[in-house]
Amino acid sequence: MTAIHPANPASKPSSPPQPAPSWHGRDLVGLQGLSRAELVSLLTASRDAAHKIEQNALDPVLRGRVVATMFFEDSTRTRSSFTVAAQRAGASVVDLSGGSSSVNKGETLIDTARNIEAMGVDAIIVRARQSGAAQIVAQAVACPIINAGDGRHEHPTQGLLDTLTIASRFGRDSTFDLSGLNVVIVGDIASSRVARSGIAALTSLGAHVTCVGPSSMAPSSLSALGCAVAHELDPLLPTAHAVMMLRIQFERADTDTPTGNKSEQVKKSVIASIREYRRFYALSAERAAKMRQGAIVLHPGPINRGIELDADVADGPRSVIMQQVTNGVAVRAAVLSLLVGGPRP
Amino acid sequence: MTAIHPANPASKPSSPPQPAPSWHGRDLVGLQGLSRAELVSLLTASRDAAHKIEQNALDPVLRGRVVATMFFEDSTRTRSSFTVAAQRAGASVVDLSGGSSSVNKGETLIDTARNIEAMGVDAIIVRARQSGAAQIVAQAVACPIINAGDGRHEHPTQGLLDTLTIASRFGRDSTFDLSGLNVVIVGDIASSRVARSGIAALTSLGAHVTCVGPSSMAPSSLSALGCAVAHELDPLLPTAHAVMMLRIQFERADTDTPTGNKSEQVKKSVIASIREYRRFYALSAERAAKMRQGAIVLHPGPINRGIELDADVADGPRSVIMQQVTNGVAVRAAVLSLLVGGPRP
Amino acid sequence: MTAIHPANPASKPSSPPQPAPSWHGRDLVGLQGLSRAELVSLLTASRDAAHKIEQNALDPVLRGRVVATMFFEDSTRTRSSFTVAAQRAGASVVDLSGGSSSVNKGETLIDTARNIEAMGVDAIIVRARQSGAAQIVAQAVACPIINAGDGRHEHPTQGLLDTLTIASRFGRDSTFDLSGLNVVIVGDIASSRVARSGIAALTSLGAHVTCVGPSSMAPSSLSALGCAVAHELDPLLPTAHAVMMLRIQFERADTDTPTGNKSEQVKKSVIASIREYRRFYALSAERAAKMRQGAIVLHPGPINRGIELDADVADGPRSVIMQQVTNGVAVRAAVLSLLVGGPRP
Repeated sequence: MTAIHPANPASKPSSPPQPAPSWHGRDLVGLQGLSRAELVSLLTASRDAAHKIEQNALDPVLRGRVVATMFFEDSTRTRSSFTVAAQRAGASVVDLSGGSSSVNKGETLIDTARNIEAMGVDAIIVRARQSGAAQIVAQAVACPIINAGDGRHEHPTQGLLDTLTIASRFGRDSTFDLSGLNVVIVGDIASSRVARSGIAALTSLGAHVTCVGPSSMAPSSLSALGCAVAHELDPLLPTAHAVMMLRIQFERADTDTPTGNKSEQVKKSVIASIREYRRFYALSAERAAKMRQGAIVLHPGPINRGIELDADVADGPRSVIMQQVTNGVAVRAAVLSLLVGGPRP
Repeated sequence: MTAIHPANPASKPSSPPQPAPSWHGRDLVGLQGLSRAELVSLLTASRDAAHKIEQNALDPVLRGRVVATMFFEDSTRTRSSFTVAAQRAGASVVDLSGGSSSVNKGETLIDTARNIEAMGVDAIIVRARQSGAAQIVAQAVACPIINAGDGRHEHPTQGLLDTLTIASRFGRDSTFDLSGLNVVIVGDIASSRVARSGIAALTSLGAHVTCVGPSSMAPSSLSALGCAVAHELDPLLPTAHAVMMLRIQFERADTDTPTGNKSEQVKKSVIASIREYRRFYALSAERAAKMRQGAIVLHPGPINRGIELDADVADGPRSVIMQQVTNGVAVRAAVLSLLVGGPRP
Repeated sequence: MTAIHPANPASKPSSPPQPAPSWHGRDLVGLQGLSRAELVSLLTASRDAAHKIEQNALDPVLRGRVVATMFFEDSTRTRSSFTVAAQRAGASVVDLSGGSSSVNKGETLIDTARNIEAMGVDAIIVRARQSGAAQIVAQAVACPIINAGDGRHEHPTQGLLDTLTIASRFGRDSTFDLSGLNVVIVGDIASSRVARSGIAALTSLGAHVTCVGPSSMAPSSLSALGCAVAHELDPLLPTAHAVMMLRIQFERADTDTPTGNKSEQVKKSVIASIREYRRFYALSAERAAKMRQGAIVLHPGPINRGIELDADVADGPRSVIMQQVTNGVAVRAAVLSLLVGGPRP
């Protein structure tokens, strides 16, 4: 653990304590636009849930409630994390992800959500390919909607779990003040809902966030999100407190895949792209060695070992990747409890 | 709401009150052949469940029970409705629908059901492509079987939820007497298990049911079910209290489907069929405007908007489609509780 | 029921009663290498669970616990049996089997298991194609792992349920002493994890086990497992107390399968193989008639009726196949309770 002396104390909240914002009955579509107090209330509840889960003392505040998962894009890990979180908090979970391919059109998305709501579920967890899908669903139904990732837009519980993981390592108190912290996000930021949610939460809490990648993946227009943009990773490593690696999606060059009948030309081209990417942006063991003492490495998973992140780093002492997974359940249990718990309307 | 003055008071039950029929341990394979008292007992329990669910006061009479869903034909909505219903009533649900394609042969259907029963589940909810499959399963196992749709035969919980929805709008008392009500069912009646279950319940309770469609879909032989048959929708609209639209399954003319390589000839033919069907049988906004005051529109879902039913009507004031979905959970919770609840044998 | 007079009383345990071995927090990867006392403790708990489930009196010792199923090889029946068992014991179950095809590589198997563990689940039930996969997972994570079948290696809960089923028919007391019992296992023993686990448990408890099949399926090297090996079934039938038939996997000769475009040549060859196999190794009605009074027939399911086992035998008085399924839930509930129940660490 490295104690952080805030570089900019003025960024700490100086206002008197406010009543915690109420989340009951609300949606969680994104972290952009949330007030600092709202973020702190979500993180505080998440930290509490993490402690209680660790002590097997989480209150089953969702007993008797039914939560629906509606994933129009496959993600066993995220769906499972929400499912475990809901079950730990006492809820039943019904999965409505079947036949997903036919329900990716806007109208059917709304139709499906309205049907699920009409079944009397207490909340719907939505993942979809289209940016903005969660907001569309939230406007169509009255029950709380939790965005589990919509296109390139947001993945708010991922942003919260990343922030909680960083804050748990470096944050000093219940304010979740992250001023003085340098966070570097590496990869295809432009396409990443994970980055977008993370940037929103981290910058709002005072962290200095730099997005790094080739200009196609990290265009300078990203600075509108409140972060810095860079195209070289190496100069940033010595001062970064946390490095968040994103998953890189190259067309696979494997010969043992169903698409293994690719031409040699395409295979070589993919391998060349990966080699080029690794040269500048992969967090190799060599690069990780340049990081400051106590600095940590995050990855939303699943990892492409040997592509954006070396196995030695993923499993090494700087890695907090498993802590992210554990915090994911806590964040999701806390969010569900805040939005759905308490007396039914 | 329109108060209905029964056209035929003589059809009201005049016998003294009977003890409620016992459902414990029985199957629910179909509504055809049930006595009026049996139908009323299912509907009464369903209405009670609907009220209790609304007040979050449903008794978890199925706590500790395990209910299995065995769907040999994909239907996320119906399976989810049963799942939510079972969970609301306190049961756990195990889904055994995997690998469905290989288990559509009669012998394996029975083998699978016997295996599930041997696992000690308390009830099995079956959907299958073959008409009569639910009865075959019911004869092979001792635990209660609930038919969730078998071929063109029956879909009894759908028939109950349709009847409950109509009765809730028009029924005056606990007898569920529907005499004087005109119900029109539109579409491919001959192939529809939804229609078959609906006709059984509605006619038994005194409603006058007319099936409408081209003669291929609404052959005159349907009158053996106790309903009238017609081939023109327009003359029926001014006197109908409820119009139930069925989903029409045309070969899709979309170019963005996997079967998009259809010849232009076939596409034109499908489009011509849809146009022809719509001309006579779709419930368009214009047609809906001819319905009497307070008359309602039902659809079992999922809707082909713009084909059998216009979006404006589906979402308009006559539509009780979302109420059908809500009643579906209540009906299924009630049926499961009646068949499975109470002390285990 | 046939009372068995042990042929070899010396094989009965003569040592004074030992404290029951502790299972809390352990894995169950295989039955090979377990002590007799350990096997007896698992079987005793399984028998108790079977009685309690029958009386609807199983203690929900897993209430509040979350158990994960991670099946990299499809098996609706086994997964459902574990799911029902966990639910009966009060646990919630989360299924992480989605996208299984991409996770059959060793590294991803471990990654996935570590992720699931980091979500805070209390146990992971693993099925995989690779022999040894369960052990690999068990070494990678701290929470209890239960092997639900790994390649040709082991399927310990199947071995326990087979043993419990045999012992319930023939065993005389709580020692589960099976000395004097002749068990014959018929089929592709070399490829069978079911046989491997069964042989380990049955021989350890004193039964005399003979593996029967063509030499390709029952090589003499199997004798290293402590069993006899034979290539003719008929001479063994009159003295066998229990005959365990294994499922035979021939390439299918059906014309109605997706692979129905096989050449006539291949179809004829498959049919010839099945005919040849049946001639020597199928348990036909004729063969079953040669079995001794009270002898039983087992099959792990799903049965190829008319191939390795005739329908008349599978459904006849010697068959304990449904009892195996029922005991499967009891064994799995007992194992989960032993490994996971009690205060959380």
